[in-house]
Amino acid sequence: MRKQKIQIKEVGPRDGLQNEDEIIETADKIEWIDRLSNTGLTYIEITSFVHPKWIPQLSDAREVAKAIKRYQGITYAALVPNMKGLDTALEANIDEVSVFMSASESHNQANINKSIIDTFPILEEVVQGAIQGGKTARGYISTAFGCPYEGEVPVEQVFRICDKLLEMGVREVSLGDTIGAASPNQIEDFLELALKRYKSTDLALHFHDTRGMALANVLAALDYGIETFDAALGGLGGCPYAPGASGNAATEDLVQMLNQMNINTGIDIQKLLQAGVFMRDKLQKNLPSHMLAAYTAQINEN
Amino acid sequence: MRKQKIQIKEVGPRDGLQNEDEIIETADKIEWIDRLSNTGLTYIEITSFVHPKWIPQLSDAREVAKAIKRYQGITYAALVPNMKGLDTALEANIDEVSVFMSASESHNQANINKSIIDTFPILEEVVQGAIQGGKTARGYISTAFGCPYEGEVPVEQVFRICDKLLEMGVREVSLGDTIGAASPNQIEDFLELALKRYKSTDLALHFHDTRGMALANVLAALDYGIETFDAALGGLGGCPYAPGASGNAATEDLVQMLNQMNINTGIDIQKLLQAGVFMRDKLQKNLPSHMLAAYTAQINEN
Repeated sequence: MRKQKIQIKEVGPRDGLQNEDEIIETADKIEWIDRLSNTGLTYIEITSFVHPKWIPQLSDAREVAKAIKRYQGITYAALVPNMKGLDTALEANIDEVSVFMSASESHNQANINKSIIDTFPILEEVVQGAIQGGKTARGYISTAFGCPYEGEVPVEQVFRICDKLLEMGVREVSLGDTIGAASPNQIEDFLELALKRYKSTDLALHFHDTRGMALANVLAALDYGIETFDAALGGLGGCPYAPGASGNAATEDLVQMLNQMNINTGIDIQKLLQAGVFMRDKLQKNLPSHMLAAYTAQINEN
Repeated sequence: MRKQKIQIKEVGPRDGLQNEDEIIETADKIEWIDRLSNTGLTYIEITSFVHPKWIPQLSDAREVAKAIKRYQGITYAALVPNMKGLDTALEANIDEVSVFMSASESHNQANINKSIIDTFPILEEVVQGAIQGGKTARGYISTAFGCPYEGEVPVEQVFRICDKLLEMGVREVSLGDTIGAASPNQIEDFLELALKRYKSTDLALHFHDTRGMALANVLAALDYGIETFDAALGGLGGCPYAPGASGNAATEDLVQMLNQMNINTGIDIQKLLQAGVFMRDKLQKNLPSHMLAAYTAQINEN
């Protein structure tokens, strides 16, 4: 059942940096993304076109999108919350537009300030606009495996939103374990049902490592034939509901596991680690990534 | 194939502390172990009866062993390298004696200062002595899934040592991924062969989280019916070959995953986390455990 080739979608520049207090200079973001483009990654979510008031760290979305080098074979994506964001994203020539909402009502309300039902038309407009602009769209569902306010989220609720997003025309739905609450059997139970309803290529999984289970969850999902995973270099991202906890699944930890499993990612782990060191130096703190810590230890030994 | 009940063997007081530079006071070790005894753990490796010159941190082995509270249903084990150590261990009334060697020649040489062939008679003497003293014995095989000097270690080499240890009379062999190099497919390939040769209850797995794969490796092993895993509270232990890297699989991360998978460990995660906070405060540094970081973040929020 395990696929021999996996695509990793790098979300560090967006999902990673948006949770960092230390503001990274625009030039450093650009250099970092250019370095990421040279690792073999085929998908990089580079920023978010949200109002700067929401995420000051990403207020330079337009400059970043315009200044990075673009390589053939790499999709440069960005988060877009509404039509205003879409205009800027299209003008900055983003390849893929990601819309987002939550599976749980209270998280959606807290994050987007709207009910789930009122969020659909806004996302639909953005997805349609992106497609009309010659771009593709991706849908994120946050809190798909647990909500910081509501706890467990019914699978049917996730499916309902997934249906809607696919109907709108997104080419893939990324199911986010926003608070890192999922366990391998939860992923198995979910996919057992989900794959009766969706093609495996309709779904990507987006794990956070809050409880250290991200790679175990990936392993469970691999056994169900899932072939797309989001990750953030360095394990950036933290958890807004548990400051100090681990962030996204670390790209380099995931690549290392897949490499050892003889599953092709096309990514050069050494270049990835070097790009990780670059951003860690800018953030001036240790990052949650295991491979980065081990790599640094070895460098210091030699 | 997954068992519904798993035994976790807590090795923090030995494998965890032996790698810590900060010397913990004897009274604090005793209090920590007493706290561990109240978490529901049924097996605690409390210390090592090696020469204090080798591991100054554990030079109080005898005092610790004599002063801790002993509870029915808990096995209090200790590492014993030779007959001198065994005498002290028996006098201190250790329940189970753990002998150790490496699967790779060069690591065995570096760690024990003997060839593999010359190590067998020493271990056999200790195992026999332990059994004659009315105790049980356990065997550790270090570098079972990779060696810092030799890289890959042939499976046949691991089996050869495993055979010898079981012949000597150990009731279980703990296979150590000393440098945290194993990946899930390596564990699967290993167990595919190993379980043709050994009963699943002959084997325990001892993972380190250097590359962040410890829980994924546990998941792979669970699918093969393995039911005993070593872990260290807080993820203590580090990696002597990569200072700053993650240590042992963190007991609380493992318990959390198993709890969520409805696999019974008998361990109270809250008490475990409280015992983790206790030792972290003594060591005065952040530990690699994910659950401990998330737990602390939540405490600070509330």
